[in-house]
Amino acid sequence: MDPKLTFAAAWLAFISIFSHSSAQEKIEQWSRFEVGLSAKTTQNPYTDVDLTAVFSNGKETVTVTGFYDGDDRYKIRFMPTSTGKWEYITRSNLPALSGQRGELECVPAKGRNHGMVQVYHTYDFRYADQTPYYPFGTTMYAFLHPDTEREEQTLRTLAQSPFNKIRICLFPKTYEYNNEEPRYFPYREVEGAVPDSGRRAVWDFSRFDPDFFAHLERRIDDLGRLGIECDLILFHPYDEGYFGFDRMSRDNDLRYVKYVVARLSSFRNVWWSLANEWDLLRQKTREDWVEILETVAQSDPYGHLLSIHNGKVYFDYHHPLITHCSIQNESAYEEFGRAGLIKDCYRKPVVFDEICYEGNFPNRWGSLSGQEMTYRFWQAALVGTYATHGETFTSDDHIAWTEKGAVLRGESAPRIGFLRGIIEQTGPLTIIDNWRYPNFSRGRNGQVVIYLGKESPQEWTFMVPTRTRWADGTRVKVQVLDTWNMTVADVNDTFVTRSVGYEINDRQGKTVPLPGRPYLALILTPEEFENRE
Amino acid sequence: MDPKLTFAAAWLAFISIFSHSSAQEKIEQWSRFEVGLSAKTTQNPYTDVDLTAVFSNGKETVTVTGFYDGDDRYKIRFMPTSTGKWEYITRSNLPALSGQRGELECVPAKGRNHGMVQVYHTYDFRYADQTPYYPFGTTMYAFLHPDTEREEQTLRTLAQSPFNKIRICLFPKTYEYNNEEPRYFPYREVEGAVPDSGRRAVWDFSRFDPDFFAHLERRIDDLGRLGIECDLILFHPYDEGYFGFDRMSRDNDLRYVKYVVARLSSFRNVWWSLANEWDLLRQKTREDWVEILETVAQSDPYGHLLSIHNGKVYFDYHHPLITHCSIQNESAYEEFGRAGLIKDCYRKPVVFDEICYEGNFPNRWGSLSGQEMTYRFWQAALVGTYATHGETFTSDDHIAWTEKGAVLRGESAPRIGFLRGIIEQTGPLTIIDNWRYPNFSRGRNGQVVIYLGKESPQEWTFMVPTRTRWADGTRVKVQVLDTWNMTVADVNDTFVTRSVGYEINDRQGKTVPLPGRPYLALILTPEEFENRE
Repeated sequence: MDPKLTFAAAWLAFISIFSHSSAQEKIEQWSRFEVGLSAKTTQNPYTDVDLTAVFSNGKETVTVTGFYDGDDRYKIRFMPTSTGKWEYITRSNLPALSGQRGELECVPAKGRNHGMVQVYHTYDFRYADQTPYYPFGTTMYAFLHPDTEREEQTLRTLAQSPFNKIRICLFPKTYEYNNEEPRYFPYREVEGAVPDSGRRAVWDFSRFDPDFFAHLERRIDDLGRLGIECDLILFHPYDEGYFGFDRMSRDNDLRYVKYVVARLSSFRNVWWSLANEWDLLRQKTREDWVEILETVAQSDPYGHLLSIHNGKVYFDYHHPLITHCSIQNESAYEEFGRAGLIKDCYRKPVVFDEICYEGNFPNRWGSLSGQEMTYRFWQAALVGTYATHGETFTSDDHIAWTEKGAVLRGESAPRIGFLRGIIEQTGPLTIIDNWRYPNFSRGRNGQVVIYLGKESPQEWTFMVPTRTRWADGTRVKVQVLDTWNMTVADVNDTFVTRSVGYEINDRQGKTVPLPGRPYLALILTPEEFENRE
Repeated sequence: MDPKLTFAAAWLAFISIFSHSSAQEKIEQWSRFEVGLSAKTTQNPYTDVDLTAVFSNGKETVTVTGFYDGDDRYKIRFMPTSTGKWEYITRSNLPALSGQRGELECVPAKGRNHGMVQVYHTYDFRYADQTPYYPFGTTMYAFLHPDTEREEQTLRTLAQSPFNKIRICLFPKTYEYNNEEPRYFPYREVEGAVPDSGRRAVWDFSRFDPDFFAHLERRIDDLGRLGIECDLILFHPYDEGYFGFDRMSRDNDLRYVKYVVARLSSFRNVWWSLANEWDLLRQKTREDWVEILETVAQSDPYGHLLSIHNGKVYFDYHHPLITHCSIQNESAYEEFGRAGLIKDCYRKPVVFDEICYEGNFPNRWGSLSGQEMTYRFWQAALVGTYATHGETFTSDDHIAWTEKGAVLRGESAPRIGFLRGIIEQTGPLTIIDNWRYPNFSRGRNGQVVIYLGKESPQEWTFMVPTRTRWADGTRVKVQVLDTWNMTVADVNDTFVTRSVGYEINDRQGKTVPLPGRPYLALILTPEEFENRE
């Protein structure tokens, strides 16, 4: 290497550190600290330059990987998970980038910053600061790819929505309902190369396009400000070789995920979704996916939530590196309790990330009514799992929410918000006696939630399963919910329990009048205990 | 060791080899070859004598473990899996047992001997000789423990039944419906020791009782002659410390399973079921079970089928040493397709080894009607899984089949036999389009089976899902089954297919008249292909 170049690079690096990370820079816990460095190289900076930094606060040591960001610039990003003073030192095979030191002061998080979402109590999630997190997500595969104005409009819609998670694809999509040309591509084209027929371009898979990633990062931060987790889909099959990102070589796949993780693991609201409909990516085997899985997990120093979404065939969600199940199933919500079987098998949190879409597409997966979408969300929630929303309405502008965002046209979103409010009150639900009374669930706070589904009863006779374990003489208050009209009404009576066989009844056999409409629910709150037996 | 004793032991061993395994003894493939040896020792022959034999046919080498059988006798058992000449040599830390040689001639199996049952095609089973095996099992926890006459009666009943698998407990059971004193115990008592209150005896866990095992082995062979696989339950919770076999130390547990496997792994019709309702054995952790699992698998040179049965909580059936899922679930059969979710999650054969029992017990698990039991068998079979029967009828003699055998009193057994005949004809079933048409299944032979369950239709309009992939113009024959009355009637018409959207109909919209009873099924056989479009 030219010594003059090295000197210049080192000088630039020195300047860069000072401009980006002055001593004692204050960073909120779980926020992003960035070190900027500059250096020239005659090699390919994406593939031939290794750059890491070791951050230490005296107790913990975290090694993070830097990345090349174009124009001779390199970045190292770090998300401190503990408050206090952290110091770092860089290491690189490019001398100008190596041995750089600095420090930061990590201060407590505030406002909407609750840290990363993590698995909690086997089946649930919570933020790093122990705030509960219940995923009520939506889907927008091509959030990234349309014009700026539509992105801004989408963000405004999301801000008014009940959704706190969104599934987006990193790679562009070419598909019946989505064939717009993206603004940015993750790779640079090979200049002058002519692609094969049916191919979009000849990509240089050894050179990423930093503009693509800057755009992605800006939008992930926008989502974070709205309190929305970004469930980032790293591979998908809606390409069929046109872009060719569905059929890169193993080496290119691994280089890609390492680069993405190096750039994005310091974003606290990122979840890794290895794929959408992994089983439709016919070019990859289960062994390929395990290698991608291991590479993502090993590259991520923070342990972001990590899963892979199925088409028809489940991946091995038991794999210890997979944090939760990201399931597609169109029939797990048809009857009470059914969705819980998957939770029982995997003993991990289950998010039903595709349950079909509310809309009027001709396809059977894109034509749920708002009632059916809401019903499926309730069925998922009753067993302590979570559903994910999507919308596929045809429109004059050919913009369906689940493809390209913009506005919500369906009726389910506010009802999903109503359900979210209920779950935030009761805590996660579990079926009380799942083989016999699958529509009776208990919240972690002790309340019982009974969902009446598609029936339209005029009254309900007080009953809960004996496994509710309410002692005889327990006094219970009842609320009637209309989950479609989003109302909650207190029943002006108190019920007193008596256990008979497998059921607990009211001593006097009292009933609750109901409005004779579908989609009703009851919330039972044990008021006080009074054993009169 | 006393040299005189050693000489005497060696001499006895010499005699023993000649009496039990003369040169060129002929043994059927997958049958049992036994070497008998004798030796005296002043140590505990169950715990202090190591005895193995290496069998070789020049290509394969199999190391089997011998066991002490009382009265200074030791046995080594071997099941040859390939025909031809095998030689062996013994190894022991007791010199009299070591270095003994012999040979056998393994000849082809004949008659009902099809070899061990193994996993086939991910979800199915077949015998080692490639004969298909479809488990249609029943349950008799205390088969071993009553009197000889009742055992013989049970065997006569089984001979007339459709069942080809039986789940039995090795350890005795003490339970509401089963508190007879067993004839034999697996361990000897400590002489003169007085047990704690509520305990049956003080056992010497270092000394097994060979009479107990000889009795067990005789009965396993009796089952084998009937073509019945013995799904042997090694631990169970129906003890509560009375016998104390549910709460032995880890060392005793492992010594026990090693002894059992040494004695029984040469029985081709044995399956290992580590436990019944493992999650109710509160003294053991998941880690304990993994150690027991590994010990059984490592001790068994043949790889017998190996599972563990749950109460409410599933074990990790993904564990690579578990060959199939042995599931209890009371609600997996309530709706079409539901049982298949478990198969999809585990990607192994699924046997629903408890689906409640046909009977009139007051407990909800023991009061299925014959219709409901049969219905559940059909629901399991439609998704390519298998159910297991049991009976719990009260009677004057207090003998319920599922506890103690004797006679079958229910109505489901012959209907289960009818279903078995159907599955033997169609091959294993798979749902064709499981998220939308869960009661349409396809057999491996190409036939379509449609189960109509609890509805009582007067007619059926020809339709199969498009994913059946029958080209337009396919000619189809239809049979109507009454699964309760066990009849099959040919429909005197031919249907010609035409695909429209997600469904394939008859061109002329033809219907099939039905008898308006529940539990009907249809079998559709594509006759020939004729594309007229």
